[in-house]
Amino acid sequence: MSQRKGHLRLGAFLYPTGHHIAAWRHPDSPADAGRDFRHYVQLAQAAESAKFDLIFLADGSGTRGDNVEFLSRTAHSYVAQFEPLTLLSALAAVTEKIGLVGTASTTFNEPYHIARKFASLDHISGGRAGWNLVTSSSAHEAKNFNFDEHLAHARRYERAVEFAEVVEGLWDSWDEDAFVRDKAAGRYFDPAKRHVLDHRGEFFKVRGPLNVERSPQGRPVVVQAGSSEAGRALAARTAEVIFTAQQTLTDAVAFYADVKGRMAQYGREPEDLKIMPGVMPIVGATQAEAQEKFEELQALIDPTVGLALVSTLTGGFDLSGYPLDGPIPELPETNASKSRQSLTLELARRENLTIRELYLRVAGARGHWQLVGTPAQIADALEERFVHYGADGYNVMPALLPNSLDDFIRLVLPELRRRGLFRSEYEGRTLRENLGLRRPVPRYQREAVTQ
Amino acid sequence: MSQRKGHLRLGAFLYPTGHHIAAWRHPDSPADAGRDFRHYVQLAQAAESAKFDLIFLADGSGTRGDNVEFLSRTAHSYVAQFEPLTLLSALAAVTEKIGLVGTASTTFNEPYHIARKFASLDHISGGRAGWNLVTSSSAHEAKNFNFDEHLAHARRYERAVEFAEVVEGLWDSWDEDAFVRDKAAGRYFDPAKRHVLDHRGEFFKVRGPLNVERSPQGRPVVVQAGSSEAGRALAARTAEVIFTAQQTLTDAVAFYADVKGRMAQYGREPEDLKIMPGVMPIVGATQAEAQEKFEELQALIDPTVGLALVSTLTGGFDLSGYPLDGPIPELPETNASKSRQSLTLELARRENLTIRELYLRVAGARGHWQLVGTPAQIADALEERFVHYGADGYNVMPALLPNSLDDFIRLVLPELRRRGLFRSEYEGRTLRENLGLRRPVPRYQREAVTQ
Repeated sequence: MSQRKGHLRLGAFLYPTGHHIAAWRHPDSPADAGRDFRHYVQLAQAAESAKFDLIFLADGSGTRGDNVEFLSRTAHSYVAQFEPLTLLSALAAVTEKIGLVGTASTTFNEPYHIARKFASLDHISGGRAGWNLVTSSSAHEAKNFNFDEHLAHARRYERAVEFAEVVEGLWDSWDEDAFVRDKAAGRYFDPAKRHVLDHRGEFFKVRGPLNVERSPQGRPVVVQAGSSEAGRALAARTAEVIFTAQQTLTDAVAFYADVKGRMAQYGREPEDLKIMPGVMPIVGATQAEAQEKFEELQALIDPTVGLALVSTLTGGFDLSGYPLDGPIPELPETNASKSRQSLTLELARRENLTIRELYLRVAGARGHWQLVGTPAQIADALEERFVHYGADGYNVMPALLPNSLDDFIRLVLPELRRRGLFRSEYEGRTLRENLGLRRPVPRYQREAVTQ
Repeated sequence: MSQRKGHLRLGAFLYPTGHHIAAWRHPDSPADAGRDFRHYVQLAQAAESAKFDLIFLADGSGTRGDNVEFLSRTAHSYVAQFEPLTLLSALAAVTEKIGLVGTASTTFNEPYHIARKFASLDHISGGRAGWNLVTSSSAHEAKNFNFDEHLAHARRYERAVEFAEVVEGLWDSWDEDAFVRDKAAGRYFDPAKRHVLDHRGEFFKVRGPLNVERSPQGRPVVVQAGSSEAGRALAARTAEVIFTAQQTLTDAVAFYADVKGRMAQYGREPEDLKIMPGVMPIVGATQAEAQEKFEELQALIDPTVGLALVSTLTGGFDLSGYPLDGPIPELPETNASKSRQSLTLELARRENLTIRELYLRVAGARGHWQLVGTPAQIADALEERFVHYGADGYNVMPALLPNSLDDFIRLVLPELRRRGLFRSEYEGRTLRENLGLRRPVPRYQREAVTQ
């Protein structure tokens, strides 16, 4: 393959029992992993020993839907797991080098709280905090926060842009050397190095300053996941890492070029942003062994759960009345995500899939890129996307925990290292340093230089 | 003294460099303690070795005021310290038995977030979380959350009452045995044991259920601090621990009787609430040594800081133009807290204090009960208030950290143990068990029993 300098950045995206929809039913998974702190300690420490850049936690501020029959049959309903900021803070105390990235929504939070908690985590962890900035689209979450419905997509992104501005402004409240703590003179901080934000925007009025000192990374790393037009614009403007879900090399390369190409208009360099698609690798010593592991999980998918996921992906249509081994019926158009709906249906029609075949195809990894193969095959795929500038690294989504993370560390990482594609030791002390991201220049210094 | 069964409950109220206003200037204090995680680990582990019931963290969602000259001369301005929920979560990972109580305001938060984060902390810590429920009165905080002014006192308490109801309702979302996690049957939880709150009140609409499983303590312990009429009513209704600031035995006994007497109307027993006044003990082997330690701190009070604190306590009047060693001038009445203002001024007039003498009297402990003496003298005072039912225990506010906590553990605790007033080993596994608080009955079970 063509040469590309540098190495992959890797995240370990931890979902309690693993990302495969049926992982919790596997005999090797601890079904109560979502409330088992020891489980997470082991995973985080394993990822750190293996020199992953970061661990990554998703989030939702509510259960996923009202279909109780479905919810009660899956561990993926976000009903019984730790809240990310508390969990990451606890993990900070038992790890030393690995980055700690957690999701927090801009839709149902206040920027002051978010700026403060991530800055605090950055201090606690000695410079390892990252904020995955998302907007929340679920009406079920909205109903937990005084709303009857969720905000429209465009409004959510307008709010997110302003939210990010406020958070970044608050993180710049104090110059690096503001706290002189001169005991003899009785001077705790230098008043000239304190900056009152005084933000007054459409969504927020936030005076500041933040009541946390400038954090070890300057600012926590900002991660983002949106792939829509508004999501890409926001990412090009503020994100330092993007977690994406492109399925093919072509899509990944196009996405990469598009987002990196947008950055110049915000005065940013392409290296200021690392693109890390999600990938669910299932590894075996042989292709057959990998396939067997995959099939073992697939066989555990409950038809109720499979049907509910297909129903979500095809726009909310209830397929439960149709024979599982029969064809997909003609479905009416809905106002759900058009691209997702048509992609799923096109797949079913093109390959003439039955309902069961369709859910087996899409339910396991819930729409993410999945790789089933030998260490060399998986390394090939990861290398290919990297050298073609479709990715700067990957957010690895272990199918089954702890097994799939162990497999990846034991089988795939040595292969990546042999190819010079992954580190054997951390380069830096902070997440920002390990990701190869520049230390941000505080806005008041930028303004001083510009004037 | 008269007999009273049982022993004291003790909290270690950790303020970065200690509670004395000048502690940060003392040569023994690490002036950057507010961002030094190791410092807190040592304090928490020391308190745990000594069998304290809990550590306690105060909070503010903003800096304390706009007087930058004052703020910049004190470490007590809440400008550079950890956010409590992240810090307590991190400390949970490096402690095993001690309770972890953090302050979070009902004025600028959403109940879903608070319910979730404390429940998550309760899981992470194996049943050691406590929430200190406060209302925020500061306009400086309000300005960080879209307000121009703070909510009126009465509205804040109305909001707090509804906030607490929602949080407690969310904590009851799942029955203890809701999560069956039956791998063979594919049943993750029992739908009959999931409760949708569907709260619709004046301040909040919150659907629920909470997306955290019922926590190890049933519910985290609820702590409260208000001493006003509305504060006492809220405490009698919902608090399980009260942190108060009575200065004298008479006041403490009256407060204790009043609050415990109000509980019956909410169907609660007096033992369901532990009253733990704050106390700042300065201990020496002799009275003279204790006094010397105290004077050493007093001498470090910067006049700017002392004047600003007296000004706050006397209703905002600026005394900086008057001679420090002259009398307090005649002050106009203001609309600040009347009781505080008149108490401070009465003290000054009664004892004919100069401005400097007044600030030395009140600034050190910032209005809290302070005890300067030998271990026996301090144990006497703590015992007296306990046996006369003026306290169930104390929230110990070390003047200087780490020294004053070490002194208390080394000198006062053995004396309390000798008198049978404090434990040598934890009785229980959770904070609730150690405090001797009953496990709360979930509301859906209560309702089932009542019907």
